[in-house]
Amino acid sequence: MASKRDEKAVTPQSEDFSAWYNDVVFRAELVDRGPAKGTMVIRPYGYRLWELIQADLDRRIKDTGHDNAYFPLFIPESYLRREAEHVEGFSPELAVVTHAGGKELEEPLVVRPTSETVIGEFMAKWISSHRDLPLLLNQWANVVRWELRPRMFLRTTEFLWQEGHTAHVDEADAMRETMLALDFYTDLARDVAAIPVVPGEKTPGERFAGAKRTFTIEGMMRDGRALQSGTSHYMGTNFAQAFDITYAAEDGQLTLAHTTSWGMSTRMIGAVIMTHGDDKGLVLPPRLAPYQVVIVPIGRGDAAEQVAAAARALAGDLAKAGVRVKVDDRPQVSPGFKFNDWEMRGVPVRLEIGPRDLDAGVVTMSRRIGDEGKEQIALDAVAGQLPGILDEFQDRLLARATEFRDSHTATVDDWPAFVTAVSSGWARVFHCGRVECEDDIKADTTATPRCVPLDAPAESGACVRCAEPSAYGKRVLFGRAY
Amino acid sequence: MASKRDEKAVTPQSEDFSAWYNDVVFRAELVDRGPAKGTMVIRPYGYRLWELIQADLDRRIKDTGHDNAYFPLFIPESYLRREAEHVEGFSPELAVVTHAGGKELEEPLVVRPTSETVIGEFMAKWISSHRDLPLLLNQWANVVRWELRPRMFLRTTEFLWQEGHTAHVDEADAMRETMLALDFYTDLARDVAAIPVVPGEKTPGERFAGAKRTFTIEGMMRDGRALQSGTSHYMGTNFAQAFDITYAAEDGQLTLAHTTSWGMSTRMIGAVIMTHGDDKGLVLPPRLAPYQVVIVPIGRGDAAEQVAAAARALAGDLAKAGVRVKVDDRPQVSPGFKFNDWEMRGVPVRLEIGPRDLDAGVVTMSRRIGDEGKEQIALDAVAGQLPGILDEFQDRLLARATEFRDSHTATVDDWPAFVTAVSSGWARVFHCGRVECEDDIKADTTATPRCVPLDAPAESGACVRCAEPSAYGKRVLFGRAY
Repeated sequence: MASKRDEKAVTPQSEDFSAWYNDVVFRAELVDRGPAKGTMVIRPYGYRLWELIQADLDRRIKDTGHDNAYFPLFIPESYLRREAEHVEGFSPELAVVTHAGGKELEEPLVVRPTSETVIGEFMAKWISSHRDLPLLLNQWANVVRWELRPRMFLRTTEFLWQEGHTAHVDEADAMRETMLALDFYTDLARDVAAIPVVPGEKTPGERFAGAKRTFTIEGMMRDGRALQSGTSHYMGTNFAQAFDITYAAEDGQLTLAHTTSWGMSTRMIGAVIMTHGDDKGLVLPPRLAPYQVVIVPIGRGDAAEQVAAAARALAGDLAKAGVRVKVDDRPQVSPGFKFNDWEMRGVPVRLEIGPRDLDAGVVTMSRRIGDEGKEQIALDAVAGQLPGILDEFQDRLLARATEFRDSHTATVDDWPAFVTAVSSGWARVFHCGRVECEDDIKADTTATPRCVPLDAPAESGACVRCAEPSAYGKRVLFGRAY
Repeated sequence: MASKRDEKAVTPQSEDFSAWYNDVVFRAELVDRGPAKGTMVIRPYGYRLWELIQADLDRRIKDTGHDNAYFPLFIPESYLRREAEHVEGFSPELAVVTHAGGKELEEPLVVRPTSETVIGEFMAKWISSHRDLPLLLNQWANVVRWELRPRMFLRTTEFLWQEGHTAHVDEADAMRETMLALDFYTDLARDVAAIPVVPGEKTPGERFAGAKRTFTIEGMMRDGRALQSGTSHYMGTNFAQAFDITYAAEDGQLTLAHTTSWGMSTRMIGAVIMTHGDDKGLVLPPRLAPYQVVIVPIGRGDAAEQVAAAARALAGDLAKAGVRVKVDDRPQVSPGFKFNDWEMRGVPVRLEIGPRDLDAGVVTMSRRIGDEGKEQIALDAVAGQLPGILDEFQDRLLARATEFRDSHTATVDDWPAFVTAVSSGWARVFHCGRVECEDDIKADTTATPRCVPLDAPAESGACVRCAEPSAYGKRVLFGRAY
């Protein structure tokens, strides 16, 4: 019997990473499958993760002078057609409202897949002078892109995101904005989600539909694949031309604005799961953990109430110290069940209090990952020490993920080494920049150019695939991607 | 020329309240009309009002043990049909997605008009034991109800709201929840929005489609009409039956849960506008004002920079004192223009600083409403005094709105007095409770029963319309409504 897997255990990552992922998202009660194809229900534990991401990102957005607004869900089909590349990119994914109020509509309405077009229409209306620029807008919204192969959080028919949309007097100002937004994402990923993403520029073949330049942050998941976790686009004057976003410059000349857009979505939750999780379930970075500490009171009979009271008092102290804490006092399940449950849910620190602990004036602490095993801490020192322990845990996750990423990234110059590298991680290579060559590489290995890293040193050489001269003045990062 | 109205002035309320409302929402830059019928763009100043409402309400919701979650936008048509009254109530307003991903869908998807049905489906899945109850969920979301006669904020095809959905072991617990949610709304309206709403129960003819009991808060707008500003519904076991939401009771018996739902929307912004606004524009309660104080530096030439620096320093002090403050340093418009602009936008307190103020160590303060006129305050006392001044302003708005409501509410017992009362406000009357009698009253006067106020004294008498005995054991509030 011992060899038969526990029904409740998750599939090991090493056996089937994709099955592991599905096991974890459902058993940790992050999501459920929605009734319409490819949709998801974000359950309270998953939604709390999103709220914590939102709070951090919203602060960054507001602190830099952006205003939140809200634009309509329904976009007339004709709007999308105004920017040729944009409509071509999104057409296959659109959901379309054809009937409303009991009648067939004269013009079908697209459920927004992104809002460049409708926001472009209003930018044109609101901007008249250079004094109206920069116009710095953001919205938190749901968007819909029909998915044939949905994966919870990663690719769902409906997802939640923020989309920043800004207009500027010239390319220099718009590019500053594009990079500022990319910095939001890089910093949030690293400092809050403990994901050492690589910020870089997409190659032309991987650009957003309608953008002149697309920047991305790429995270490495524990199966060696890349997950694009946020993007920032410089649109040039493409949307300004399509929607007539013009302003009177200081010299009175009517001038096209330069626009940007940038977004981060509920996909970020998938990045957290696949960067840190293990065969016991989720591992959450403290800064995003709905509960940073769970307290499990252990005691039966006479001791039960005394232990429960001590657990509640400790939770109060921890909350005062700014720690998000939960007392698991469910009477119907055993301590062992609770331990597994909170491990599955990725809570960074578990505290147990039993009658003997209470007599000795201590609690027993276990960290979700690490070699320390169980550790006793004086009850009256817990609230003082926990914030530091959580910071240390946060750093540990980032260090571990960085080590994983670096040990799975190879700098290679020949094709066999490339094939080996992208079978389990990323490859830094020279590339000719031709889309057909990217396609050949993808056909052979399923790897794609993830980005040209911003911080890569200036170098050049022969394309790893076709030996033509390299196009970017630096190495490109290739990997298989979600 | 003096008799010709300034192009920029709003239509006086007394002349055409509805035109006044439209003038204000667009000129104060709260909204714009969306491209699809009846939709709106919520502009940054309007959205900030919504964010402040959200922050307050979300805190109340979380403090009482509710969890936020997110359910899909698209609901299979078949779900709505499971509760007969519900589908009948919503069918005429539905927007329907028939095509997606380039194909016609096998089953059309409804864009959620409200989420009882889809949430009911998951409640059924997640609840098995009495230990799973109460299940206390909330979501912040957009919903769509096709509107033939849209009004910005009041009735729009798409709007933003929160919808609470909860499941309970029995009627008593579900009714406690229904009233708790109503209290959120009553308290938020009164204490934050300064609207002295009347909480009460809807008569059977005005219930939510599928509810056993519907409760409401009704606010009186400055044209004497009522605006329903939040509702809370006890569903009985209607949705539990339709979606099979059952639990094993302590004795093991499979039992139907009792559910509730409750919502407050962007309509609340309309309530704020129409409760407090005047012929100069918006008047915002300080607790919801995006800017509570605006500082206008006045000075040209040499004095300009000195005055601007003083304004910035003062703004810093006010921000530290917890005041939301804006310095209007636009060089291209005059102080007079700024005064009008911020009056239109309803900022509670304006501070002017000119060179002479600076020499005397004072600022000149004007309140958005009141008889005080301009007042001088010592520069170094402003940050200390402003929080109190804003509280007093908040109280003043509530007192004024309460006085208005009370002076436009009459207790009447005969038909002619009823007709007079509802022509300019509300009437407290006995009513027989028959829907046909409600319909007769509506046909003659356009007035409808707004609610049976919770705090009305026990009384009975003859129906004001048909002289049948009164049905509710207390008086009913009638009025014309939005």
